[in-house]
Formats: sequence, C-alpha cells, structure tokens
Amino acid sequence: MSLKLYFAPGACSFVPHVLLEMSGAEFEPSMVKLHKGEQNSDDYKAINPRGQVPVLVNNGQPVTQIVAIVLHLDQLFPQMGFLPTEALARAQAISTLAWMNNTVHPTFTHIFMPQKFSDQPEVQAALKPYNTQLFRGMLGELQALVKAAAAKGQPWLSGERFGPLDAYSLTLTRWGTIAGITPEEHPELWAFVQKVAAEPAVARVIERERLQLNMGRPA
Amino acid sequence: MSLKLYFAPGACSFVPHVLLEMSGAEFEPSMVKLHKGEQNSDDYKAINPRGQVPVLVNNGQPVTQIVAIVLHLDQLFPQMGFLPTEALARAQAISTLAWMNNTVHPTFTHIFMPQKFSDQPEVQAALKPYNTQLFRGMLGELQALVKAAAAKGQPWLSGERFGPLDAYSLTLTRWGTIAGITPEEHPELWAFVQKVAAEPAVARVIERERLQLNMGRPA
Repeated sequence: MSLKLYFAPGACSFVPHVLLEMSGAEFEPSMVKLHKGEQNSDDYKAINPRGQVPVLVNNGQPVTQIVAIVLHLDQLFPQMGFLPTEALARAQAISTLAWMNNTVHPTFTHIFMPQKFSDQPEVQAALKPYNTQLFRGMLGELQALVKAAAAKGQPWLSGERFGPLDAYSLTLTRWGTIAGITPEEHPELWAFVQKVAAEPAVARVIERERLQLNMGRPA
Repeated sequence: MSLKLYFAPGACSFVPHVLLEMSGAEFEPSMVKLHKGEQNSDDYKAINPRGQVPVLVNNGQPVTQIVAIVLHLDQLFPQMGFLPTEALARAQAISTLAWMNNTVHPTFTHIFMPQKFSDQPEVQAALKPYNTQLFRGMLGELQALVKAAAAKGQPWLSGERFGPLDAYSLTLTRWGTIAGITPEEHPELWAFVQKVAAEPAVARVIERERLQLNMGRPA
C-alpha cells in the first residue's frame, strides 16, 4: 500500500490528514499552495479535475471528497475504530459527518469564498454577514453534540474512539474564528477543540500545517 | 426490522425511496407535505430537528442525511450491491455520491430556495441565474460520468448494479428542468435518466410520488 495525501494548511483536508497520522501508517503528505493557485495547475487537475483538496492517492488511484476518503481510511485501518462498527451508531456518525460536509462547511464557503456563488461584488458582500449568522448557529448545534456526547460519558463525538467528527470539529471551529465568531461564544465547543488539539497525532498535524487555532487573536 | 421512510415528492428522498423499493423489503413510505410546512411541525421535528427529508426510521431509530441512509441501506441489503464492494471502486462511488450531495444538490438549492442563503430579495434574485449556470455545468459533468460508464460497458454509474448514483441522477436532472435547463442540452444524460425511470422499482416510486420528469414541459 502506498498512500499520498494532498492537503492545504487549514483546509478540510485536515480531517484525513489527522486520521492518516493517527493510523501510524507510512504516508506522504503533499502540500498544495492554494494561495499560489497550485490546485489549478495541469499537474494537479490530472489528479483532481475539480481542483480541490483533499485527494488521497492509494496505489496510484486518487480518491476525492472527505466523506469518501474517511470511509476508505476506516476500511483500510479497521483497528483504529474511526467510525463505530454497530450499524445504527455508524449511521449516526456518518449522518453527522455528512451534515458537517454538506451544510456547515459550505456555509463557511459563503463567508470565505462568496465568489463561488456570485460574480457580483455587492451580492458577495451581502452573503457574508447572513451566512456568518447561520454558521454561528451551526457551531451552536456542534456544541450541543459535544455536550450530548459528554452527557453520555463519551470522550469523543462518535463514542469511545477518536474519529473524523472530532477532527472536523476543530477545523469548523477554527474557521469560525476567521469569521469573527469568538471562542467565548461556544465555551464547551472550544474546550473540546483544545482537547482534540492536544492529541499527539493531531498536535503533529497542527505543527506540520503550522496552524493557529484562534485566528481572531493576533499571532 | 421495521423500516419507515419519510419522503417528499420530488425531493432528494427519492434516492432512498428507490433503493428501498428495489430491495423488496417491507417498508412504510410516509409523505411529508413540504408546501404545507409539515416538516416544521413539532411531531416531525421530534424525528428530525433540522426539519428535512429524508429520514429513515429503522426499529424506531431515525437516520438522517442521504449519504448515511444510503450506506445504511447498503449494509442492510448487501445482496442488492447498491455500492461496489471492491475498496477503490466503492470509494469512487461514494466520492461521486458525496459530490452530488454537497455540490450539485446545494447549487440547485440556490436556485430553488435562495432564501436559505440571504434574507434580501435582490440578493436572492441575483443568486438564481448565476447558480443556474453552475448547475448547467454540473449536469454536463454528470453527463460525462454517464458517457464514461457507457464507454466502459457499464450499464449503471457505479458498475453492473443499479445504485444511488443512478437514482440521484434522475432527481438532479429533473431539477434541472425546473431551473429551465432543457433535456436537449444534455441528450445522453436525459437518455440515461429515461433508462433509470424505466426500471420497474423506479417506475413504482415515480408513480407513488406522482412525478413528471420534465418539469419544463406542460403536463
């Protein structure tokens, strides 16, 4: 097995980056400099025609999309328990992963890259505050999930084992600080994200991606 | 096993509706009248607090999100081969499913329900034409997938067996006609969708949901 992950610092590629690091398997992390437009190069488009990160290349075959990569890693490393094995617990975890990916994540895209939804500057400007409010509410929902897991005595969002929901929570909460949503607004969520960040494999990825968790605070 | 599916006619709940019908298993289809706001009733919110369809209730436990429901049905009915079993083919199918769900589907939402992204009527009006162009391009990408499958001699999008990608293609292409994208713009895609619609289980669901495929043509 040869594994290579194309990632961009701070992007949602953080999720598979963390899972790969946690697996202990050998893999090649390959940084894509989005600010230099490397995702639009012919070389990169040959790997992912949509010009997005992450891409996991397994034995030369590229797999795109967080949800597909996470499920593939869960299949490659069953001993890690990235997702629950019991059918309904597994369905609930995948449901939350899908929600993060198809709702919370794109809401942030309306704030961070409104040009993806309109070519009119005034429309782009109007999308930001409205979607910041939506994103704030979604981080509130995420905090409710954190509290519900804690109430059940679960250390992580999908149960006893660290998984993609935990890593994605860090990414989404960090993005919130870019949108001006302060850690104080969701204290239990922020405390949880600190716990995620303290996991040794997560800390190594944060170091490799050179991430600052609270982007609202001067470095 | 007791299975109940909450669906709305023409919504993306069509995808699990078709898979359940195809499985031959007994299930209770329960229609949610979105135009009457039934998804916002207290009863429905007790099942899905986000007020969306579909919800699959398995032995009293609700599962939300298309991707999670599809994977759960694949686990419940392995004999149906809804998703490929070989690891990389499976990852590719789930990747395309995720793309349909997190990119193509929400692009249509910008056309059909722009009020989800802005409370300003002029912003809502501006989102429609821009996202219609994006949606048109995505249906072109979908047609390319149909042609690539045909070129490999595959009858369906993920291989030899009918699966969620085929059902979702019908839904997304039908939505295109609501957005004014005519069948003539993507003839191979439209021909494929007709083939999907002709499958007996699909035809039964189309009848139960009382769907017209081409919404741009007077009934």
